Amino acid sequence: MYPRSLQALIDAFRRLPGVGAKTAERYALSVSELDPRELEEFAAAFLNVKEKLHRCRICGNLSDEEECSICKDPARSHRQIFVVQSAKDILAMEKTGEYQGTYHVLNGLISSSKGVMPEDLNIESLLKRAKDCEEVILATSATMDGETTALYLDRLLKKECPGILVTRIAHGIPAGGMLDYADEITLSHALSDRKKM
Amino acid sequence: MYPRSLQALIDAFRRLPGVGAKTAERYALSVSELDPRELEEFAAAFLNVKEKLHRCRICGNLSDEEECSICKDPARSHRQIFVVQSAKDILAMEKTGEYQGTYHVLNGLISSSKGVMPEDLNIESLLKRAKDCEEVILATSATMDGETTALYLDRLLKKECPGILVTRIAHGIPAGGMLDYADEITLSHALSDRKKM
Repeated sequence: MYPRSLQALIDAFRRLPGVGAKTAERYALSVSELDPRELEEFAAAFLNVKEKLHRCRICGNLSDEEECSICKDPARSHRQIFVVQSAKDILAMEKTGEYQGTYHVLNGLISSSKGVMPEDLNIESLLKRAKDCEEVILATSATMDGETTALYLDRLLKKECPGILVTRIAHGIPAGGMLDYADEITLSHALSDRKKM
Repeated sequence: MYPRSLQALIDAFRRLPGVGAKTAERYALSVSELDPRELEEFAAAFLNVKEKLHRCRICGNLSDEEECSICKDPARSHRQIFVVQSAKDILAMEKTGEYQGTYHVLNGLISSSKGVMPEDLNIESLLKRAKDCEEVILATSATMDGETTALYLDRLLKKECPGILVTRIAHGIPAGGMLDYADEITLSHALSDRKKM
């Protein structure tokens, strides 16, 4: 029913997260009203990502260069590594402006249900980096797989890098969060990790 | 903060309707995880729309060819023209499967506030087509500009094509709609256009 070129664009948009048939149609129709120069810019943005964007060879962060801007920054502490499961967590953390160390991207979590084993993750390079480090902060998510991965890394790091400090980010009630809306696991985290006022 | 190639993609996504900074970031990050072949397909979809998609020279509908599939279809009644403000209205109407005539896309509405005059719209070609027609159905939206445009076209068509039947689509309570949620204009349409049971 749609012209073939428009249908191909609708199909492409449906690959985006949370985009269903209706939204993809709306996006494609709005794109069909752009002028040719803008359409070229859109296409070029995709090709550029394909050609230029890759993983930092040190930490696995997204970067246009071989090493990402954080790993190359001499002003940051290279003796602290903040371990995340995916590159977008780095972007979220950087927005706080609170952290001055470096990062390491695991590219996933150990998961028995999904069949992801430790050797599928970016762990070997973390061990190498950790040998010159003071602290490794484990910031995998507060889910079953996230906790499993954190426990695994904790044991491995302490065995391979004796004397290293391994920490885990705090879990509890989020800012602005109300107790009666929090789930049980969050509440039990909040209780067990309580601190003296 | 983002690699430049990723930022360019985020900026591109922000041109889509209803897409803000957060959503554009989410789309761009998910795209950065596609494999090279999928990224090429995405880019090609945009370039294809740029090269192939244009307006049907008869009715103004979106088409990959000089004339759209509806105008070329001998099974459809070419003595009925359904006049809409934009091509996406055709797609919506075609989904009902109820209409067997042809369409005409105005490409906008007469609007004093936006400075859109009758000569800015695809009206001249409508007049030419209407000369060989039995009925023109005006389906501009039930807004101030939509009503203005419908009134203007009604007068013009009756003057230029004597004897032609000009109709307006019905306005009233939508299917599943409840009276207490309907606005005043919809309610007054529903009252004045009531029909005998």
